[in-house]
Amino acid sequence: MAVIAPSRRVRRTPFSDGVEKAGVKGYTVYNHMLLPTVFENIVDDYHHLKNHVQVWDVAVERQIEVRGPDAGRLMQMLTPRDLRGMLPGQCYYVPMVDETGGMLNDPVAVKLSEDRYWISIADSDLLFWVKGIAYGYRLDVLVDEPDVHPLAIQGPKAEDLMVRLFGEGIRDVRFFRYGIFDFEGTSLVIARSGYSKQGGFEIYVDGFDLGMPIWDALFAAGEDLNVRAGCPNLIERIEGGLLSYGNDMTRDNTPHECGLGKFCSTQTAIGCVGRDALLRVAKEGPVKQVRPISITGDLPPCDRAWRILADGEKVGTLTSAAWSPDFDTNVAIGMVRMTHWKPGTKLEIETQAGMFDAVVQPKFWI
Amino acid sequence: MAVIAPSRRVRRTPFSDGVEKAGVKGYTVYNHMLLPTVFENIVDDYHHLKNHVQVWDVAVERQIEVRGPDAGRLMQMLTPRDLRGMLPGQCYYVPMVDETGGMLNDPVAVKLSEDRYWISIADSDLLFWVKGIAYGYRLDVLVDEPDVHPLAIQGPKAEDLMVRLFGEGIRDVRFFRYGIFDFEGTSLVIARSGYSKQGGFEIYVDGFDLGMPIWDALFAAGEDLNVRAGCPNLIERIEGGLLSYGNDMTRDNTPHECGLGKFCSTQTAIGCVGRDALLRVAKEGPVKQVRPISITGDLPPCDRAWRILADGEKVGTLTSAAWSPDFDTNVAIGMVRMTHWKPGTKLEIETQAGMFDAVVQPKFWI
Repeated sequence: MAVIAPSRRVRRTPFSDGVEKAGVKGYTVYNHMLLPTVFENIVDDYHHLKNHVQVWDVAVERQIEVRGPDAGRLMQMLTPRDLRGMLPGQCYYVPMVDETGGMLNDPVAVKLSEDRYWISIADSDLLFWVKGIAYGYRLDVLVDEPDVHPLAIQGPKAEDLMVRLFGEGIRDVRFFRYGIFDFEGTSLVIARSGYSKQGGFEIYVDGFDLGMPIWDALFAAGEDLNVRAGCPNLIERIEGGLLSYGNDMTRDNTPHECGLGKFCSTQTAIGCVGRDALLRVAKEGPVKQVRPISITGDLPPCDRAWRILADGEKVGTLTSAAWSPDFDTNVAIGMVRMTHWKPGTKLEIETQAGMFDAVVQPKFWI
Repeated sequence: MAVIAPSRRVRRTPFSDGVEKAGVKGYTVYNHMLLPTVFENIVDDYHHLKNHVQVWDVAVERQIEVRGPDAGRLMQMLTPRDLRGMLPGQCYYVPMVDETGGMLNDPVAVKLSEDRYWISIADSDLLFWVKGIAYGYRLDVLVDEPDVHPLAIQGPKAEDLMVRLFGEGIRDVRFFRYGIFDFEGTSLVIARSGYSKQGGFEIYVDGFDLGMPIWDALFAAGEDLNVRAGCPNLIERIEGGLLSYGNDMTRDNTPHECGLGKFCSTQTAIGCVGRDALLRVAKEGPVKQVRPISITGDLPPCDRAWRILADGEKVGTLTSAAWSPDFDTNVAIGMVRMTHWKPGTKLEIETQAGMFDAVVQPKFWI
C-alpha cells in the first residue's frame, strides 16, 4: 500500500503530535485533513474500543459556524429535518441536500443559542454550499470555519474517564445533548455523541493550542482504564450501521435511500432547499435503499463501489465491508433495489478479486 | 510515514490500474480522489520529467459542467477575470473568490460553446459554491460533475508522443487553447496546458471506461521516447512558481496576495461575487504577497505552514519547499509582508526541525 505524501494542504490537527506519538499506522484524508484509521491493527483496535476507552482525533469533523439574525432561517433552508423544536443545548443529526434532494453532507448541528449554530460536518466542503445559499439569499448571517476541533472519547469506560477530567456533572449529559465544562479556565462544549455504538463524548476543543494539553490530560487521567489512542473503526461502524458520507451515500442519493427518511419532516420543514423533490420521494418511497449485508469469503479491501448482482443482473452497489470477529462474517453496507432488499435475499458481489456470495440481513449487528 | 487506508470515499480514477502497475509509491488525496505523488523517487521523477515525457493521472482535476442560457452570466459571477473576450476553443485560468475576495479555488475554465463550460478544479468542492450561487440567483443553468477525467502528457517530448496518437494537427494547438481530436471513434477535448513548466497537453478523457485504453495506447506509442508514468512534481512546480490551492493559498487570501492580480479585471468583470472587496484591494495593493524563497540547510518535509521570521517577528508564512538538484538550493514558496518582500531580504524559517536561513528571490527558478 502506498504512503501518504506530506503537504500543508492535507492539514495536521491540534492532536497530530499525540497521534504520531501513539504510533498511528494508517491515515485517510477527510475534509483536507489527516484522519487516523489504524493504530495497532484494525482488529485489535476494534476489541479495545468495545472493552475500554479510546481518545479519537476527529478534528476532521470541521465546524461551520452560522451566526446572526438569519441563522435559524438559513439552518432550516439547509435541511429537511424540522428544526422548530430544537433548543440550545441540543445536537441534531441533519441530512443536508441540494435542490434535487441529493445528499451534500450528513452533519450534526449544535445549537449554541437562538442565533448561533455549529455544523459538525462529514467529508465535503459544505461551507461552500452554506456560503453560496447565504449569499444568494442575502441572509444576515456570518458563515465561517471557527478554530474548533472535536476530540472524541469512545468506549464503555468513556464516562469514567471523562468524570475524572470534567467532574460528575458529565454523567448528566444525555445522548445528543451537550453541556459546558471547564478545562483549565476555558469553557468547552462537550456532547454525548460520537461515531461509534460504544457510547462516549465529543469535546469541541475551542482553540488549536488547547489540543495537546487536553489530549495529554486524558491519557494521564486514564492510565488505569487502559486508555489508548483510537479512531473510527471500520468494523465497528459497519456492525453498528453508521453510514459514511462519500462511502455509503453521495450526492446521487436521497436521504430516504440512505434510510434517513425519519430525519426528513418534509411537510413541515418549510423553506428547505430540495423540499419539492423530497416531497415527491416521500410520496413514492425510494426505489433502492441502504441494507446490512453479510458476505462469505476472503474479501479484498473495499476500495471502490462493488456491483451487487442477482441472476447476473445489477441490483445494487456495495460500498463498505469488513471482517467482523464478533459476528464471524463479513459485515457490509450496500444500496439495494426494492426487488432484492428483503432480508434473506441471496446476492452476489462483484469485486476486484472475483465474485462473493452475500445475503441481505434483517438488521445491523447491534 | 503512514500508509493511506483504502475506501470508496477516496475515489479511484479511470487510470488507477495503470498507476498501480507502474509502481506508484506515494499518494495524496485531492478532491476526494487518489493523486499519485511519487513513482521512482521525487528526484528521479523530476529529472525524467525535464528530459523525456510522462503520462500523469490528474483525474483529480474534477470538472464542473455549467450549461444553459445563464451559463455565461454564472461564469462571470464566479471570477474577477473578465470573460467577455473568451471564445469557444479557449482555456482561461480563473481565480474564483467568495464575497470577501477570498480564494475558493483556482481552476481552469474551458469554454465548449456559448452556453457550455467546464471548470477544471483544484482541491476544493467548488461544485457546492457554484450550485449554491446558481440556486440562490435562480439561474437557468445545469451544474453537475460530468464523467470527464483529465490525463496530462508533460515533458519536452510530449508533443512528439501526442502526434503519434492524434496526428500532426496536435502541433497547431496553442497554449491554453484546445482542439477536438479523435480516439477510436470518440471526440476528445485536448488542451495545451498542464501543471508543469515542461510543456505538454491535457486530454479530457470523456468516459471512465476510455481511461485505460488511452493510457495503454500512450505507453505503447511512446516506448522509444522513454515514456513513464509521472505526476505533478513538487520540486519542478515550486521551481516554476506554480501555486497549489490549499498549500500556497487558501480562503484567507485574495488573488492579489497570490500574485494573481493580473487575472483580476475587477473594474470590468461586472457581476463578479467579491467585486466590492477586490476593488478595495486593487486600490491599496496587498499587504503581503507570494514570493519565491531559497532556504539553506537540510529541511524536514513541509507538511504544515512554517512561520517566516525577521528579527524574531513574524513576517510571513512558508507553505511549500523542496530540495532542487538543478539549482542546488531549497526552493520554496511563501507569503511575505511588504516590509520584507524585497529580493535579497534575509529571513528565518521556523520548522518542526528548528530554524533555517532563507532569502527572498527576485524570481522563480525558470
